Amino acid sequence: MIETAVAAARAAGRILRDRFDQPHDVSSKGLRDVVTEADVLAQEAIVAQIRARFPGHQILTEEAGHALGPAADYCWIVDPLDGTTNYARGIPHFSVSIAAEHEGVLQTAVVYDPLGERLFHAARGEGAFLNGRRLHVSERSRLIDTLLDLGWARSPAARDLSSRVARTLGPAIGSVRTMGSAALGLAAVAAGWEDVYFHSELAPWDMAAGALLVREAGGVVTRPDGTPWDVFGGMCLATNGYVHQALVELIAPEM
Amino acid sequence: MIETAVAAARAAGRILRDRFDQPHDVSSKGLRDVVTEADVLAQEAIVAQIRARFPGHQILTEEAGHALGPAADYCWIVDPLDGTTNYARGIPHFSVSIAAEHEGVLQTAVVYDPLGERLFHAARGEGAFLNGRRLHVSERSRLIDTLLDLGWARSPAARDLSSRVARTLGPAIGSVRTMGSAALGLAAVAAGWEDVYFHSELAPWDMAAGALLVREAGGVVTRPDGTPWDVFGGMCLATNGYVHQALVELIAPEM
Repeated sequence: MIETAVAAARAAGRILRDRFDQPHDVSSKGLRDVVTEADVLAQEAIVAQIRARFPGHQILTEEAGHALGPAADYCWIVDPLDGTTNYARGIPHFSVSIAAEHEGVLQTAVVYDPLGERLFHAARGEGAFLNGRRLHVSERSRLIDTLLDLGWARSPAARDLSSRVARTLGPAIGSVRTMGSAALGLAAVAAGWEDVYFHSELAPWDMAAGALLVREAGGVVTRPDGTPWDVFGGMCLATNGYVHQALVELIAPEM
Repeated sequence: MIETAVAAARAAGRILRDRFDQPHDVSSKGLRDVVTEADVLAQEAIVAQIRARFPGHQILTEEAGHALGPAADYCWIVDPLDGTTNYARGIPHFSVSIAAEHEGVLQTAVVYDPLGERLFHAARGEGAFLNGRRLHVSERSRLIDTLLDLGWARSPAARDLSSRVARTLGPAIGSVRTMGSAALGLAAVAAGWEDVYFHSELAPWDMAAGALLVREAGGVVTRPDGTPWDVFGGMCLATNGYVHQALVELIAPEM
């Protein structure tokens, strides 16, 4: 399954990369159409790879908007283009995210940054890796040293929570990044580049692969109030573990 | 001068890129030493290029902490590594920033992203460019469509302003990014990728080159309260112009 996920991510990444440099020269079509076309073609490439190897598996993907195939023990959770706003605007930071679960337990994860040629992968119980090199979360344990990747949600209620959390955490932590790809933000926590990823409005395909990366790199993923995380739960707080409880105590009262 | 700035930025970029992939394998030296070494070597490469061509010019650079050479009509303002925190943590987003002014007026700007091989340049009155292609700021005029790059300052008072601005603007705008390099954030506004860059605590070398890029791409740079910007003024609000006044009205009461 990991081989299939890697091959699918690379195929989708090629499609995204090839089209990324052209959107500003678009004439006959609008920018949005070009992005949608890249997104759909990337999804088709991924689905084709999975179907060829595992025809009985179900596939859940952002573009389709519903599960492909009947319910099955194995389900793939796919975002062919994570960081769509960045991609559409020309910001060179986006990814392909592919996860697979068995009976509801995440088994396989790949997050691929095709511009930087950075491929993150994890298999349950076997660790997390970047281009083949083992990853570990950071060991920072003081909030004031912590770098937080803060997701800015879109719907009014979730956006309001984002901006209240920004206001509350701002003075307490080291600094903030908002890079604009949930999958790459979670991968950055797995790699120890960042210490925390918070987002209050995520779909399963935004966070499934990234959550397994964080856990396999030694980190902790819960809901922002500290209760158990679920791939369908809509939000996440992913940390190196050391600062988890301190952040829950600051965020929970805002929820 | 633009040729010298480009050559200097490429030389510095090579030094930063070569050392970026190694910091996590450091054994005899700490990570901070490796970053400092890259930073100092990049600065030396830039200063050597400028000195060879313009021996009478003054140079102001972050690493030196003071102006190199006596006061002169021409002054170069240099940040050999903008986005130091990103660099030190392994986040692949940082730049070289080089500007030159004549009698206090910015003339030349180069911002270089060595990993992405993106070279932004501008010359006063001649426009802004990315890898030779002319840049224009975005035409978005509604706050709710606006993408803001929000700098998170470090000192307590400026950080508090950052988090209050995040809270105030959050519900009003399209979305937020914090990419962690002021020079690349301003370049992103010049390119139309982002619509606004705000930061409340910047040194001259953080914003000199980026400010000229924005202006030469058709944008507007002021202090966040709308008063005239100065390279030594410590803060900036850079926008596509269309949303400038609306943002000033929201930010000024927080200052």
